[in-house]
Amino acid sequence: MRRALSLAQHGPVTGGNPQVGCVLLDAHGEIVAEGWHRGAGTAHAEVDALAQLDDARDLTAQGLASSDPRAAGLTAVVTLEPCNHTGRTGPCAQALIDAGIARVVYAIDDPDARAGGGAERLRAAGIPVIGGVLAEEATDLLTPWLTSVRLGRPWVTVKWASTLDGRTAAADGSSQWITGTASRQRVHDQRAAHDAIAVGTGTVLSDDPSLTARGDGGELLPHQPLPVVFGETPVPATARLREHPAGLIEVGHRDLESALSALTERGVRRLYVEGGPTLASAFLRAGLVDEVLVYLAPLLLGGPRLALDDLGIGTIAEGLRLNIRSVESLGTDLLVTARPQSAPGSHAADRSTLEER
Amino acid sequence: MRRALSLAQHGPVTGGNPQVGCVLLDAHGEIVAEGWHRGAGTAHAEVDALAQLDDARDLTAQGLASSDPRAAGLTAVVTLEPCNHTGRTGPCAQALIDAGIARVVYAIDDPDARAGGGAERLRAAGIPVIGGVLAEEATDLLTPWLTSVRLGRPWVTVKWASTLDGRTAAADGSSQWITGTASRQRVHDQRAAHDAIAVGTGTVLSDDPSLTARGDGGELLPHQPLPVVFGETPVPATARLREHPAGLIEVGHRDLESALSALTERGVRRLYVEGGPTLASAFLRAGLVDEVLVYLAPLLLGGPRLALDDLGIGTIAEGLRLNIRSVESLGTDLLVTARPQSAPGSHAADRSTLEER
Ligand SMILES: NC(=O)c1ccc[n+]([C@@H]2O[C@H](COP(=O)([O-])OP(=O)(O)OC[C@H]3O[C@@H](n4cnc5c(N)ncnc54)[C@H](OP(=O)(O)O)[C@@H]3O)[C@@H](O)[C@H]2O)c1
Ligand SMILES: NC(=O)c1ccc[n+]([C@@H]2O[C@H](COP(=O)([O-])OP(=O)(O)OC[C@H]3O[C@@H](n4cnc5c(N)ncnc54)[C@H](OP(=O)(O)O)[C@@H]3O)[C@@H](O)[C@H]2O)c1
Repeated sequence: MRRALSLAQHGPVTGGNPQVGCVLLDAHGEIVAEGWHRGAGTAHAEVDALAQLDDARDLTAQGLASSDPRAAGLTAVVTLEPCNHTGRTGPCAQALIDAGIARVVYAIDDPDARAGGGAERLRAAGIPVIGGVLAEEATDLLTPWLTSVRLGRPWVTVKWASTLDGRTAAADGSSQWITGTASRQRVHDQRAAHDAIAVGTGTVLSDDPSLTARGDGGELLPHQPLPVVFGETPVPATARLREHPAGLIEVGHRDLESALSALTERGVRRLYVEGGPTLASAFLRAGLVDEVLVYLAPLLLGGPRLALDDLGIGTIAEGLRLNIRSVESLGTDLLVTARPQSAPGSHAADRSTLEER
Repeated sequence: MRRALSLAQHGPVTGGNPQVGCVLLDAHGEIVAEGWHRGAGTAHAEVDALAQLDDARDLTAQGLASSDPRAAGLTAVVTLEPCNHTGRTGPCAQALIDAGIARVVYAIDDPDARAGGGAERLRAAGIPVIGGVLAEEATDLLTPWLTSVRLGRPWVTVKWASTLDGRTAAADGSSQWITGTASRQRVHDQRAAHDAIAVGTGTVLSDDPSLTARGDGGELLPHQPLPVVFGETPVPATARLREHPAGLIEVGHRDLESALSALTERGVRRLYVEGGPTLASAFLRAGLVDEVLVYLAPLLLGGPRLALDDLGIGTIAEGLRLNIRSVESLGTDLLVTARPQSAPGSHAADRSTLEER
């Protein structure tokens, strides 16, 4: 399963489909084929692995529709329950049955109502199925995708860059060079790992950003996220965003939930909210944020330009508590990755003693 | 020298004197005695080591005023140039000469004009002296003390606790439990490692802090820093600070430089500025800060209560750039330790390319 999980990570995080990996084992537990899902419209991991099997085992019979002697007796180990849904590719559960696979082991259940039921179909065909193997690791890998499927909206990452005192710009608005090149490159990589990027009209008007994902030579990265502008104000005809290679969506209103629904319908599973402060605060206030990325620059500025404005929080008890997942050094900056605590107060044991100063 | 440096760290960081360690080596390079400085009014490290020698080498002759046969031929390795100043203890350079030490190796020059010249006195007595050994490590250890001596003011550490978005309290002013117990304990340890703690009158009036250094059972730690209240407003007669075991200084005005001079005269070498935002910002604006300690809690609050207010910075180029020295996890909090870049721009190579977004 560990190998299958690592194969899964070869797949793209964007494009609406989950990252899935699969290995086929013989009776001695040796890996005889490996596969992973390469993105929407391509073979699912199981089918990909079966195809490798054909290659690996010197194919003699061609075009077998069912019962493949080379697959007979093999165990399929796959990170997600084999799907039961006929999309652009057939249901994987059926493909495994047809191939004559003897046993299926998977990590986590398919949360997608349309796709679920694969384990059942396999069992109905008399194939033993074990679920839940290394489920925690697999869940970790697929959390954004699973959350998106469960909530029916994109996984929302909010990113901002600030000084150690929470400022995003000096009093005159200048903000160039707050963070260093390593942080800026990471932002480009993160853009490329999301289906869409959101900004508010304020950022478009003041910064005229291009919002492309670029490499360190300035070249466009292979995957370009779709830019989405939130707010009523139209994007100027001359805005750089109008030349974005992935197109442009103008939301035209301020209703975050309905905008997220519309994005989900366009296949957006991962949304990267780049600001500014008004839009980031609106997402946080609405409880629509799954992950927060804070780039902290070793700089103090003071003054009125803040990364977040009002979150509608009156007392400390209402504060939005986060679990910090990692702190990285990027050049001289820090990147803090955190997620809102899903069950507020569940991690607050440490804070239970009131202490005088 | 490494051993001497590690002995030096047994000494107290408070009390106005530097941490110094000394080892005495015989002709084979074996350590025959060790000493360190235990604080104002006690023997300096060299004299302490010579005293250990007496103990170690079965003293036969008593009360030798000069030329000690047991010290003859030994090398003294000491982290700071032996002093040449008769204070509460005699000059160490003379003590080494009197003892008949054959050679002296030290790390860094004594920056204190009154105390300096020890190497010269030793050389004049015909004793070979080598300075500058592991000078960088020794400087690192003594930076606060060296800075204080050089600038004629205390080493100033400014500490604050904020959320990841730079807030110190919710809109209603509630701030309990922003940071966890591990951070709060660290603050107490830091108080105990400073000669004095500064707060503004605003903090005294709003929080009525006790500003004692306490252990995790609430007990008073052995060293209590002197509380110093900056500002014109008198400390209320009923304030907890009036019961502080180390006494209380009311500055009575807002002139930071003159207040620091007065503290230096009272022997304060390390000052811990605990806030609030107005006082911390005033110290930063005046360029009187040597170290910044930022406790970051995994929490977002938004709103108007900030760790720093205005720093008088108009453009990003005027920003106060820091070098981050460490980032620690304390429970679920982060502690970032940083120092203002002494030569502004000297570490800015990474930021030299302007990049569009
Ligand atoms: N440091 C960073 O990481 C970073 C990142 C991005 C931007 N910035 C800076 O942020 C500044 C712009 O700040 P900003 O706050 O004006 O920009 P913004 O958040 O990009 O845009 C604010 C606008 O978004 C629209 N909007 C859409 N949905 C909304 C909702 N649910 N609630 C409220 N408003 C909504 C509103 O415009 P309509 O009136 O059009 O509806 C609002 O005025 C620029 O100076 C930029 O440089 C910094
Ligand atoms: N999160 C944290 O780490 C932390 C730490 C401490 C306090 N706090 C919070 O901070 C709040 C108090 O804020 P604050 O800013 O009013 O408190 P403050 O900084 O403690 O006190 C401000 C006062 O200091 C005096 N002052 C002395 N020298 C000054 C100078 N050079 N420049 C300007 N003022 C000088 C002035 O009072 P005079 O008029 O008397 O001269 C000024 O009003 C409280 O709510 C407290 O809880 C937070």
